[in-house]
Amino acid sequence: MLGPGDDAAVIGVPDGRVVVSTDLLLEGRHFRRDWSSGHDVGRKAAAQNLADVAAMGAVPTALVVGLGIPADLPLTWLDALADGFAEECAIVGASVAGGDITRCDLVVIGVTALGDLGGRAPVKRSGARPGQVVAVAGRLGYSAAGWALLEAGVPLGSSALQEAVAGHRRPCPPYAMGPVAAELGASAMLDVSDGLLQDLGHIAAASGVRVELDPQAFAVAEPVAAAAKELGTDPLEWVLTGGEDHALAAVFPADVRLPPSWQVVGRVVEGEGVLVYGREIGRTGWDHFG
Amino acid sequence: MLGPGDDAAVIGVPDGRVVVSTDLLLEGRHFRRDWSSGHDVGRKAAAQNLADVAAMGAVPTALVVGLGIPADLPLTWLDALADGFAEECAIVGASVAGGDITRCDLVVIGVTALGDLGGRAPVKRSGARPGQVVAVAGRLGYSAAGWALLEAGVPLGSSALQEAVAGHRRPCPPYAMGPVAAELGASAMLDVSDGLLQDLGHIAAASGVRVELDPQAFAVAEPVAAAAKELGTDPLEWVLTGGEDHALAAVFPADVRLPPSWQVVGRVVEGEGVLVYGREIGRTGWDHFG
Repeated sequence: MLGPGDDAAVIGVPDGRVVVSTDLLLEGRHFRRDWSSGHDVGRKAAAQNLADVAAMGAVPTALVVGLGIPADLPLTWLDALADGFAEECAIVGASVAGGDITRCDLVVIGVTALGDLGGRAPVKRSGARPGQVVAVAGRLGYSAAGWALLEAGVPLGSSALQEAVAGHRRPCPPYAMGPVAAELGASAMLDVSDGLLQDLGHIAAASGVRVELDPQAFAVAEPVAAAAKELGTDPLEWVLTGGEDHALAAVFPADVRLPPSWQVVGRVVEGEGVLVYGREIGRTGWDHFG
Repeated sequence: MLGPGDDAAVIGVPDGRVVVSTDLLLEGRHFRRDWSSGHDVGRKAAAQNLADVAAMGAVPTALVVGLGIPADLPLTWLDALADGFAEECAIVGASVAGGDITRCDLVVIGVTALGDLGGRAPVKRSGARPGQVVAVAGRLGYSAAGWALLEAGVPLGSSALQEAVAGHRRPCPPYAMGPVAAELGASAMLDVSDGLLQDLGHIAAASGVRVELDPQAFAVAEPVAAAAKELGTDPLEWVLTGGEDHALAAVFPADVRLPPSWQVVGRVVEGEGVLVYGREIGRTGWDHFG
């Protein structure tokens, strides 16, 4: 309704409630300029906040961005960053509504996303109940596989390996599945930012339940499988513990009829924690397993 | 409505539009830990964003905060920061609704403030018209005076000097005057973050008008006068060019009856730029003057 250039932006929120999520991304910690282009970083920074909004069952409407940039940052990098933000927003029909820019020794990106619930109740982390099913939508393991390939410095000799690396540079969250899950009666939902086991641990803790996963239920995507083969490791580790793909994980009533984008991977029972292969995986993740 | 602990917060916005403003504050650039306590930094970081929302004529409702903190940051500093945020929010009846925390080599604070227009039109920068009057509410020159005292390292031997330094560490924006100005028919408004001359230049440019200030109309506050005397400088320079006090500057119809918090300091005429002492002051500020 009113965008950049004034003290503040004005965003329409017909619902009367606004969903808001904020993140800080730091060069060196969350991205590397030698591994990711400005365009990649813009898309990734936008994606992780838009996914947080979608994970509440809301439709993202706007981003505001605070930028810290070094004096010697090429203007082309900054342009590409802005393009990345705008393109990721366009996927969901949102826009960049405003921002702030300041000098800093490293690139710092503060992103805040807003969204509209369209009359739905927000889907929190605390609503999972025993007897319900756990399902995921979107990619799992791509970002971890791509990161491992970049770290190993191996040649990306196949399109599958290239796709894994692209998935690290830029997640593809299934935004539309957030509101869809809410409409289907999801009782708990989040986006997978730290790794599926760890994030489902948040649902288990907030809901006072145990989540049991069926490792056979996970379809390992070809890029993740190819990367694991290249590096001689177990792809399921990346699927279960890899972060930053921003898939959605949700809990539904057992009788739900899910569209094909959702894959049932487990169930909710009485107890606590997250079990896979019948054993509990701590919040510290895979290291405690095996 | 739903605060920290989920992917995103949910804030009530009865108006159907939400005002949103974001800023990035960096240690070393926007604050120094040896000059300001965690509590001061929290209040200042909150204040500058809440003031942006008030400058649209809105009532601030919530803050979300992204924090980057060094591993060796004392927990007491972080607690004090959170207290500062909460206390500044309490002044306007807003709350800290959520956030994000990450490791960083320096303290980085990304703040986003939301606000509600209560049915009023947002007061933009572009509505000033020739024949209208320019007025300010709140402090001018405190932050610049306090900064100069700290930089000079002079002993703060009087309560006036201490008050100037306190004003640097923590601004006191006249939040309530934002909605009041909107109700009184303000045609343009902003908060003074970069200095009155520079910020009024934004209104002049956005509105396509000239602003003429009457330097005699400014009451120099005692702490600012005392600091200028101590350092042998002109207090009006701080009043006209000092930033970070987050006073409100607004343009009103000439026949407005303003409450005592507002002080008329100039008028809007045809033309461009900002004139004081009958001469134009460039956007680079006081250096071009005298």
